[in-house]
Amino acid sequence: MTVSSDPTVKRILGIDPGSRTAGYGIVEEHGNKLVAVGFGAVKPPTTGDVNQRSKYLFEAFAELIAQYNPSEVAVENVFFAENARSALMLGQARGAAILPALISGIPLHEYSALQVKKALVGGGRAEKDQVALMVCRILGIREIPKPADVTDALAVAVCHIHSAPMKRRMARA
Amino acid sequence: MTVSSDPTVKRILGIDPGSRTAGYGIVEEHGNKLVAVGFGAVKPPTTGDVNQRSKYLFEAFAELIAQYNPSEVAVENVFFAENARSALMLGQARGAAILPALISGIPLHEYSALQVKKALVGGGRAEKDQVALMVCRILGIREIPKPADVTDALAVAVCHIHSAPMKRRMARA
Repeated sequence: MTVSSDPTVKRILGIDPGSRTAGYGIVEEHGNKLVAVGFGAVKPPTTGDVNQRSKYLFEAFAELIAQYNPSEVAVENVFFAENARSALMLGQARGAAILPALISGIPLHEYSALQVKKALVGGGRAEKDQVALMVCRILGIREIPKPADVTDALAVAVCHIHSAPMKRRMARA
Repeated sequence: MTVSSDPTVKRILGIDPGSRTAGYGIVEEHGNKLVAVGFGAVKPPTTGDVNQRSKYLFEAFAELIAQYNPSEVAVENVFFAENARSALMLGQARGAAILPALISGIPLHEYSALQVKKALVGGGRAEKDQVALMVCRILGIREIPKPADVTDALAVAVCHIHSAPMKRRMARA
């Protein structure tokens, strides 16, 4: 779990945003080998309202970016929510988590949950557990980290790395 | 429209957030007289997606805070949206506009549209035009500024100033 000092190594910060818990995972690409150099969950104090939680998320992700200096950021795109109120809160939390990357000018890539599942286990019908298992196998993580936000964040980072050669090929075509 | 150099003068930044246009208004309290020292609309380039617009809003409101050094911020609370997608975008834009205040530790106060209307024209059924007219009368602004986001932002700042003595009285009771 040591960050590479080689400036040519791609280092992706994956983010699974949420207003109560936001997962993060930092994945480095060494040839065909992917290495998780850091992962975890940011949990704002439950005593705060959505504004206090946003502030906490913003500051936590600003710190992660300063610490890991990622070359790119990958985040899961969200389109659904229970109701307008929870969508507003989720949107605010999501913005707070990705704003440090946006302000730093780090390229941001978005993937739908379906794209992440397809990239990891080849099918959109996969269960969350299968994705967690697969992402840990790919990254050589022996014990599946909890909560699921952590493996979701690692999964979107891996999804981005797997999608990038395809995108490059399509851009060249 | 000159900012007071008196450090005891309360200076409120009112924000009407939105992902396409965000209104702002800075109101100073001089005894019983309220003075608008600045107002306008922040319009992120329409070419950007919601993330680029959030970045633009964050940077614009960070600049406004640096320029006007408000003692407090008042913002309209939103609970409704057309659908989950627009709620997510609005939540993200709202967060981007208020995060500079949150990070700077400036007290943030939220009011519903109903509270703003009641504070300005005494009734919740008032039309938007009436609120705009009243806020301009209170602040001595001769020509009603456009778009409506600007007068909405000024209105929430005035609402906060009008509500503050009531809040203090209630806190003492």
